[in-house]
Amino acid sequence: MEVDHRIRVSDGDGNGETTAGQGGVVGVFFAGCWLRLRSVLAGLWCWVDGFARKVGRIAREDPRRVAHSLKVGLALTLVSVLYYVTPLFKGFGVSTLWAVLTVVVVMEYTVGGTLSKGLNRAFATLVAGFIAVGAHQVANRCGAQGEPILLAIFVFLLASAATFSRFIPEIKARYDYGVTIFILTFSLVAVSSYRVEELIQLAHQRFSTIVIGVLTCLCTTIFVFPVWAGEDLHKLTAANLDKLAQFLQGLESECFGEKAASENLEGKAFLQVYKSVLNSKASEDSLCNFAKWEPGHGKFGFRHPWSQYQKLGALCRQCASSMEALASYVITLQKSQYPEANPELTLKVRMACGEMSSHSAKALKELSTAIRTMVVPSPASITMSAAIKAAKDLRNELSEDAALLQVMHVAVTATLISDLVTTIVKIAETADNLARLGHFKNPEKTQKDVAINIPNR
Amino acid sequence: MEVDHRIRVSDGDGNGETTAGQGGVVGVFFAGCWLRLRSVLAGLWCWVDGFARKVGRIAREDPRRVAHSLKVGLALTLVSVLYYVTPLFKGFGVSTLWAVLTVVVVMEYTVGGTLSKGLNRAFATLVAGFIAVGAHQVANRCGAQGEPILLAIFVFLLASAATFSRFIPEIKARYDYGVTIFILTFSLVAVSSYRVEELIQLAHQRFSTIVIGVLTCLCTTIFVFPVWAGEDLHKLTAANLDKLAQFLQGLESECFGEKAASENLEGKAFLQVYKSVLNSKASEDSLCNFAKWEPGHGKFGFRHPWSQYQKLGALCRQCASSMEALASYVITLQKSQYPEANPELTLKVRMACGEMSSHSAKALKELSTAIRTMVVPSPASITMSAAIKAAKDLRNELSEDAALLQVMHVAVTATLISDLVTTIVKIAETADNLARLGHFKNPEKTQKDVAINIPNR
Repeated sequence: MEVDHRIRVSDGDGNGETTAGQGGVVGVFFAGCWLRLRSVLAGLWCWVDGFARKVGRIAREDPRRVAHSLKVGLALTLVSVLYYVTPLFKGFGVSTLWAVLTVVVVMEYTVGGTLSKGLNRAFATLVAGFIAVGAHQVANRCGAQGEPILLAIFVFLLASAATFSRFIPEIKARYDYGVTIFILTFSLVAVSSYRVEELIQLAHQRFSTIVIGVLTCLCTTIFVFPVWAGEDLHKLTAANLDKLAQFLQGLESECFGEKAASENLEGKAFLQVYKSVLNSKASEDSLCNFAKWEPGHGKFGFRHPWSQYQKLGALCRQCASSMEALASYVITLQKSQYPEANPELTLKVRMACGEMSSHSAKALKELSTAIRTMVVPSPASITMSAAIKAAKDLRNELSEDAALLQVMHVAVTATLISDLVTTIVKIAETADNLARLGHFKNPEKTQKDVAINIPNR
Repeated sequence: MEVDHRIRVSDGDGNGETTAGQGGVVGVFFAGCWLRLRSVLAGLWCWVDGFARKVGRIAREDPRRVAHSLKVGLALTLVSVLYYVTPLFKGFGVSTLWAVLTVVVVMEYTVGGTLSKGLNRAFATLVAGFIAVGAHQVANRCGAQGEPILLAIFVFLLASAATFSRFIPEIKARYDYGVTIFILTFSLVAVSSYRVEELIQLAHQRFSTIVIGVLTCLCTTIFVFPVWAGEDLHKLTAANLDKLAQFLQGLESECFGEKAASENLEGKAFLQVYKSVLNSKASEDSLCNFAKWEPGHGKFGFRHPWSQYQKLGALCRQCASSMEALASYVITLQKSQYPEANPELTLKVRMACGEMSSHSAKALKELSTAIRTMVVPSPASITMSAAIKAAKDLRNELSEDAALLQVMHVAVTATLISDLVTTIVKIAETADNLARLGHFKNPEKTQKDVAINIPNR
């Protein structure tokens, strides 16, 4: 309101230094500017507001993220004290900065991540430092002319070999960062050995400051609100089992239960819940890799069988794959209407499906609870045997009619393949899109004409 | 043979300085040592041999890996010349080492990776340097006592805020490395500003050397055997389509074709081929992220629609999911024997399945060729329409018998769910393993007794 008022004032009563007419033009100009500025400011405010909401949501989703951010700040501040306090600084000199650098690059979200990076960094620095000092001794004997050439050759060979070693899967998985630091330290020490007099002292200072940096990181991650990768992996596995159970429960109550609704299934939450399980491999693998670096903590020993979680994860993803096939099938099925042609058999099969789903869901729930509380999961096997029995009964029931059973089996294959056909049609559409957006070449004229002549292409 | 001979000599004729008896004992001792050493050496040799084979295989699989390793060596050697040549060294001083450091951490396998890291590093250094110099100016006015305290507070606040920003998905995806370098540079400059006199000159030197490092990396990656992430993504997508086609071709020839063998399907290669597609998400995402940083190259423009490849990838993985369900079903189906109860219908469905598979396979092959050669894929749609027609015909054929159709549909659901039951049984077994290896607590006695009493647990 204030703005409108001001515009009116400069528009109507604009008679200061300028004439009334000029005042009007200037007023309109400023009013235009002001309106534009206001819309820009409003847009900016909208963006800031949206951003703040997003930040708030991310922080609320997992408050440990805020704790981690503060921990990084704390570790950096702690380590920078080395530089500010004169007696400490005199011991290490400019090398103190390496402690700061180490904290920034080593500090990770989980204890395992920090440990893995810190140990990799410390050991790689130590080994590379020794080798570089040796290389310096050798190069030193070749005179002033030969030394830089020999050093350059050493750097070339070691950097190439070490870089190649990063393509070996085992090294890539656990020591990738260590190899980088190895190349880094070797190059730095070897190159600077050409001009630095007291190489050993420099190497010693640098190694000590790196160790100080690593220790600062470790103390902060382990003693201030630690985030254990192993615990996260444990919880993730239990949560994934829960999600699978949720899908089966939903299937039972919405499709086979007494209250099986005829409303549209497509928007139902339970038909989406398995999707995050399908994409859990990457985070599971990295958590498992970090967990192996962690010392025993809480309920987990040092040699806790972390790789078993990966096996469970692979099976969960297999389940989720089947669920994807099932979900798309259930949705299409519900859209088509059938006459009730064989109500007795249909009811039997539906009941069996419901039983299998609910027992499996119960078993998965119990397994997830057992994992979460770390109790041996015997009752789950009992529940599972009910689901197996339901499946067996259904098979026996159906096998009385051999013809029906045979038709059923070929029908299942046909259905699965026609599902594939639907997906492949979507693939062809996306490829068309890609061709259009990516300016692919057109095929020769004749072929194109044929394509245009086909109706409903 | 030589070894055996020597042992016999020292054992039988060991009569030099020692007596015959002593000589025998010493001989046996040395022979034992030698044998042990020999077995250790043989084991070592075996390991070295296996390792060399593995390295050879990795290099042969993709010779660009060797080229990349040599490129890293080359870039490092080039940049270290800055340090060896006195006039160049005088310009930059000890900061030259930052060029070496930059090369080691920025050099990536693909052009896009190097560009993304290099630009992130250069810009983050620039921005953080400016802010840090500003922070130094502010802190400088607070006297000798206040300065370190104020600097420490600045470092704490900025490091915490920047670390938190890494949890925002958009920043994580593209600017994660930049944020790390931002924290690093800000801390280093802010902390060292406490003791360094000519801060601006130091910052300037450091920034120039980092730019030199980045430029060295970029020249080496772009002009010496470049590996383009975009091209790799393009090829990966085409290869994945090919793999899906291979599965369908195999299915057609081994299960529905004329030569459909009755031999065991389980070991067949085509039933495994889709598995690598299922796990392609992580590498696809990172290649796509890098490809977006790359300038136009070869057949790809700067704004090539890279995200379309991600969409294609998601659909391919959906296909692979269905194929997993299909593969496990086909294997179980083939193990069970049925009487030929309804040969006419079975034959019809089998033929329809065969047609759908072969047409879909052809369509996928054509799509992959179209993508590989970057030609608009119109013929694929034509081929696909044949598969759609086969599916439709089958549906019409079956829908004449409404009862059969209905039974079929509930049967498919039942089959898919009983597939799930099988997987969940495996999950329960793995959970049992985990409980055993992870020393989970036993449940209370009563429950345990019940569990033991159930046969075939």
